[in-house]
Amino acid sequence: MKHTGIWKMLLAAMCLALLGCLQAQELKGHVSIILLGATGDLAKKYLWQGLFQLYLDEAGKGHSFSFHGAALTAPQQGQKLMDKVLESLSCPKDLVPSRCDELKGQFLQLSQYRQLKTVEDYQTLNKDIETQVQQDGLWEAGRIFYFSVPPFAYADIARNINSSCRPHPGAWLRVVFEKPFGHDHLSAQQLASELGSFFQEEEMYRVDHYLGKQAVAQILPFRDQNRKALDGLWNRHHVERVEIILKETIDAEGRASFYEEYGVIRDTLQNHLTEILTLVAMELPLNISSSAAVLQHKLWAFQALRGLQKSSAILGQYQAYSGQVRRELQKPDGFQSLTPTFAGVLVHIDNLRWEGVPFILMSGKALDERVGYVRIVFKNRAYCTQSERHWVPEQSRCLPQQIIFYIGHGELGHPAILVSRNLFKPSLPTQKWKEVQDQPGLRLFGRPLSDYYAYRPVREQDAYSTLLSHIFHCRKESFITTENLLASWVFWTPLLDSLAFEVPRPYPGGAENGQLLDFEFSGGQLTFSQQQLEVLIPDLGSVPKPSDFQVLGARYRQSPLITAWPEELISKLASDIEAAAVQAVRHFGKFHLALSGGSSPIALFQQLATGHYSFPWAHTHLWLVDERCVPLSDPDSNFQGLQAHLLQHVRVPYYNIHPMPVHLHQRLCAEEDQGAQTYASEISALVANSSFDLVLLGMGTDGHTASLFPQSPTGLDGDQLVVLTESPFRPHQRMSLSLPLINRAKKVAVLVMGRTKREITTLVSRVGHEPKKWPISGVVPLSGQLVWYMDYEAFLG
Amino acid sequence: MKHTGIWKMLLAAMCLALLGCLQAQELKGHVSIILLGATGDLAKKYLWQGLFQLYLDEAGKGHSFSFHGAALTAPQQGQKLMDKVLESLSCPKDLVPSRCDELKGQFLQLSQYRQLKTVEDYQTLNKDIETQVQQDGLWEAGRIFYFSVPPFAYADIARNINSSCRPHPGAWLRVVFEKPFGHDHLSAQQLASELGSFFQEEEMYRVDHYLGKQAVAQILPFRDQNRKALDGLWNRHHVERVEIILKETIDAEGRASFYEEYGVIRDTLQNHLTEILTLVAMELPLNISSSAAVLQHKLWAFQALRGLQKSSAILGQYQAYSGQVRRELQKPDGFQSLTPTFAGVLVHIDNLRWEGVPFILMSGKALDERVGYVRIVFKNRAYCTQSERHWVPEQSRCLPQQIIFYIGHGELGHPAILVSRNLFKPSLPTQKWKEVQDQPGLRLFGRPLSDYYAYRPVREQDAYSTLLSHIFHCRKESFITTENLLASWVFWTPLLDSLAFEVPRPYPGGAENGQLLDFEFSGGQLTFSQQQLEVLIPDLGSVPKPSDFQVLGARYRQSPLITAWPEELISKLASDIEAAAVQAVRHFGKFHLALSGGSSPIALFQQLATGHYSFPWAHTHLWLVDERCVPLSDPDSNFQGLQAHLLQHVRVPYYNIHPMPVHLHQRLCAEEDQGAQTYASEISALVANSSFDLVLLGMGTDGHTASLFPQSPTGLDGDQLVVLTESPFRPHQRMSLSLPLINRAKKVAVLVMGRTKREITTLVSRVGHEPKKWPISGVVPLSGQLVWYMDYEAFLG
Repeated sequence: MKHTGIWKMLLAAMCLALLGCLQAQELKGHVSIILLGATGDLAKKYLWQGLFQLYLDEAGKGHSFSFHGAALTAPQQGQKLMDKVLESLSCPKDLVPSRCDELKGQFLQLSQYRQLKTVEDYQTLNKDIETQVQQDGLWEAGRIFYFSVPPFAYADIARNINSSCRPHPGAWLRVVFEKPFGHDHLSAQQLASELGSFFQEEEMYRVDHYLGKQAVAQILPFRDQNRKALDGLWNRHHVERVEIILKETIDAEGRASFYEEYGVIRDTLQNHLTEILTLVAMELPLNISSSAAVLQHKLWAFQALRGLQKSSAILGQYQAYSGQVRRELQKPDGFQSLTPTFAGVLVHIDNLRWEGVPFILMSGKALDERVGYVRIVFKNRAYCTQSERHWVPEQSRCLPQQIIFYIGHGELGHPAILVSRNLFKPSLPTQKWKEVQDQPGLRLFGRPLSDYYAYRPVREQDAYSTLLSHIFHCRKESFITTENLLASWVFWTPLLDSLAFEVPRPYPGGAENGQLLDFEFSGGQLTFSQQQLEVLIPDLGSVPKPSDFQVLGARYRQSPLITAWPEELISKLASDIEAAAVQAVRHFGKFHLALSGGSSPIALFQQLATGHYSFPWAHTHLWLVDERCVPLSDPDSNFQGLQAHLLQHVRVPYYNIHPMPVHLHQRLCAEEDQGAQTYASEISALVANSSFDLVLLGMGTDGHTASLFPQSPTGLDGDQLVVLTESPFRPHQRMSLSLPLINRAKKVAVLVMGRTKREITTLVSRVGHEPKKWPISGVVPLSGQLVWYMDYEAFLG
Repeated sequence: MKHTGIWKMLLAAMCLALLGCLQAQELKGHVSIILLGATGDLAKKYLWQGLFQLYLDEAGKGHSFSFHGAALTAPQQGQKLMDKVLESLSCPKDLVPSRCDELKGQFLQLSQYRQLKTVEDYQTLNKDIETQVQQDGLWEAGRIFYFSVPPFAYADIARNINSSCRPHPGAWLRVVFEKPFGHDHLSAQQLASELGSFFQEEEMYRVDHYLGKQAVAQILPFRDQNRKALDGLWNRHHVERVEIILKETIDAEGRASFYEEYGVIRDTLQNHLTEILTLVAMELPLNISSSAAVLQHKLWAFQALRGLQKSSAILGQYQAYSGQVRRELQKPDGFQSLTPTFAGVLVHIDNLRWEGVPFILMSGKALDERVGYVRIVFKNRAYCTQSERHWVPEQSRCLPQQIIFYIGHGELGHPAILVSRNLFKPSLPTQKWKEVQDQPGLRLFGRPLSDYYAYRPVREQDAYSTLLSHIFHCRKESFITTENLLASWVFWTPLLDSLAFEVPRPYPGGAENGQLLDFEFSGGQLTFSQQQLEVLIPDLGSVPKPSDFQVLGARYRQSPLITAWPEELISKLASDIEAAAVQAVRHFGKFHLALSGGSSPIALFQQLATGHYSFPWAHTHLWLVDERCVPLSDPDSNFQGLQAHLLQHVRVPYYNIHPMPVHLHQRLCAEEDQGAQTYASEISALVANSSFDLVLLGMGTDGHTASLFPQSPTGLDGDQLVVLTESPFRPHQRMSLSLPLINRAKKVAVLVMGRTKREITTLVSRVGHEPKKWPISGVVPLSGQLVWYMDYEAFLG
């Protein structure tokens, strides 16, 4: 017996080294489960019950167990508290009561409380486990430490486990953490690297209990078992939208100190809804029982997420919230919290499968109902010739088609998977899922329940029971890896930062919310459907809105000046460019447009790409005003910005696109490659009189424009059309149109935006023609027109 | 009085020369209206009534009139027939009966029948008009000749009018034609050029009476008057689909001889539905009362239509049809007509406004209801936070949003314009359109009538009355210009040709059609939703379907051969290419793919573009196997095909695209420009070992491959990687990868499709290594793999 044990142990060690993680049930032995925070809320409510369920499922299958409830409380008192929890453990309905009582008795015997406070306590625990295992003639399979404690306690416990409680080599260690896993990317990274100094990645199990919810846990298996039907459907050609929704009726009362620090995005979107999003969006691995493949594919899904903008989200806060915070956190009377208790976020995924499909994430407290679901709405791709009176739910392809993973609560009251009958009959494991009885009169998502193939779990199971079983069986795909966690924070942190000072829309709570929180999206932005009627924070409400202003026309350096809020300014510039394009194409059949790089034009590119349907792109030639000497594929290249924000969205023929030849013969901007001369001849050959129809410039805080910097030895005068220059900023080498070439243009627009430009704007308004000192001052079109576009911040400071 | 008349006349002449067309009401005078075919069906049913209405509207406004009913019938008999028609003219409801009687008396007095048969008849007519005008002391404003006669009679009449009945210079001539305007592009062109030899373009008015239907005629004014609301909505970002529908319950009985020649597409889609399509899709001119602007914008809309494929349409034929044709056309017993009586067509518009928006055109006889409408369905861009029980039709943006131009009949029973209340409250001219009374219980397009702002005409008016008024007022935008007509035929003729031998799906007719004719679209193709259950033409039904076959594997010239029906073959090749790409990217980070031009790969490109979501495009480099020495933008260039069918749909970074440099220094394939050498160095620099991961080739009927033709002095051997060659076909000059370079590839796929390749396929299967004679025989990869992909037609003949 003992020899077998050692042999198995060695084998286990070898396999672990090879596979990282081994199916636990294959090697039987003793398993110790240590629940840290054994008398806390989560433990009381879910974890002990989950451990009992684990015991019910696994007892008699070869493993032996011991359960250690641990906390800081002194032994006697702790044991009392724990006993109270254990007494209330309930038996599953499908188990014969007498059998359950027997097993419960065993479980209680295997469970004991212990105080874990000092280093010695951990050493003792370790010793006790070893002794027990030896005494009982067992061999040790592994240990699970479940951290049901606040994050600030993580480090100490982790250090102690690592130094004193690791099982002997060959047995596994699994440590389980509960969120929050940080507050943003930086803190998550710090926490992760701290934990990483104590534990291997494969030892760590970060719980997102939504991954244990039955409808959520079924997403991947459902996709796998219905591959044939879904293969053609699960993509942008067929999916109209995906809604990932978590509505709560309760509010944050009693939890204000936690909630005030986190808010709805950190509380539910960054974790639960994002995890669900990746399960829906990820490419489906061939073998979904491979944790590694699932986790890798999930990570790839993160990489395809389009970055969120401030305008990707709308925020709300129920009206009672600030009062609750004042009370619970002893804040002064006038205190108004900016923490959102409601958020809607529009997520886009930039890959061929999902491009253009809106993923709507929504969560909030104090709403009209409690419900959670993922709803995949398919496009109506059918035309039904017959009058709609004759449509049949099973057959008519014109009725709505949707798949819903119903997480729970709501009108249905239990988890479910719904598939419109006109879509396909899904395949589900019959031992786990059974058909839902019809409930006449019940309508879900616009259709009667009878319009769906509807399934519910044969046995409803709590998420923690499921996850504890997954921990035990080493199913790492149900947990959050460090990479996954950080990818999620990389995605969410910029949005959180940009929303930090945003005032959420107040809502009354419950059914009274009416349409107040409805939102809609257009052009990648989310907005509330209704104008805000009341502003609860009057002093913030008086800030003028862009639409209150008109675009102002004036003069700057003897040329027309257009000044406005950024949005209007960009919109005016885009219209002016389109007008110039239409006119040029009408007269000459083509439009030669030279564009600058940098950040200011990005909004312009986006505006042109999404708002201008009549822009004659097919007849437009795009040139670069300047370029950094990096490969075109480098993220720093101006061309990349142009490609990402404009070219991807419009249809400019390949041969009308003229990137600067900064990369020739595998080198960058080598004089002898004559890239500047090549570009100049291309311009001379294609642009009549080398006179661009429109040149878009910017202005640097040092007065540079294009890549013509103060004191530049080239490009400020002379015959050269295109020059190599040096920038004081990295990358230093640049290629640029010369001032003489720019000044031949029919129209030159200079776009200046942002507060940082205020000083140079004032200065340049006063200087004369001093291109050597202020290159921008040398922009004086010979016979063309110069127009300045400045936002209020650049112009008025 | 007379002097004024002459002065006005001269002015009119000047203005006509300047403007082409002048608002008729500005110059008063005598107008003669000659209705040719005055006793025919159309005249009886609509035209006389329309002329009477015109008289009612215009009498007393300064013009004087005479109406000439003309036909081949002898005078007395003709007058009798005509009198009978005129007696039955009805008065509009809103006119006092006594006043109407008085005006009707005047109208009858001004109307007379005349036989128009010989040249002399026309000369007499001309003389009579001149005499009358002179006698009455009038001056002549113009003449309208309405051709309500079969097209075969057009030429004679037109010649006579032109030679004998033109009014004096300064007065206008307008000739009005009724469809059919040809049977296809060629016949339409012939008819147009024949008419063009007699009349100026501005003299011709081709009637499509749907343009006179009140709801259709309101489309442009509606778009114009609701610009503010529609500006942001009328585009691909907001419109989900557009349905243009014309359902009839009657069948073609009694008209089989006409119908059998035309069929549903020529009868209603090419004209009515296409005209409506352009009204919806065209860019809206600033001034919609400018005929020239409207017509020009309409024409531009035609230019943006994507060409139709055979797969863009589905056809049906009601089961009784062939019997009717047999009876009415004395066809033999076994005769089965292929003429469709039902068609659904999917139209796409390739511009920034409409790209990706399906326009569904559907029309048919013997359907379940009579109704015509244009329905613009908007995307649901909203998420409603509240449970749907609380949604309010006026406010909830989650309820359907649509605009419907209801042409007539159907459940509503009259023309109407419907706008969902949650969209916007439309502006309509109140003197012409009034709100519809709610009809509780009536549901239209999925919603109760009360969900819409619904308007109906204050006075229902027949289309011909409207159009006669438009002819009189010179509103040319309501008619089909020659350019417009030909553009429509250019669009429809290829589809008609490709469908000529297609067997339409039989349908029982009426409500019994059930779901049989429902159709759906995916990937640009239309298909019936239901599999066909019964085949009425059994001998055609036994042709095996692609899905009956498996892709066959075998060997050809010692290499693997894959043979299948075209669809499976392309699908297999696309999968193989994707697999190669995934593998290459996994191992080397990139995939170098060299593609051939020509027609066979187009289906492959489309398959790759729409069906392969995991294809690593971002890491794929695209090279050309060969290129014609034409500018890249030339429709003949291989690169163009690649751009149109692949690059537009996937995201290959600009710098990974490598067109052949056939166009350098403004010349094509000049030796001294060293384009071939440049391409060769680019390959050497970027492709490791100059070994492409995959080269896709074709095979010509002369055994050529790439642009390596039999007896080519270059490219078949030697060191050159890229060569200039001569083709026996135009354009002769080519650039091509050489055989030695091709043979360095890791994988070479040769795609051979179509019956025309049968002979060369057989021949090449037998020849040895004779690249000089059969260049394809020189494709023998050094260490890579060669695979042949042939469809059954190419392989089995």
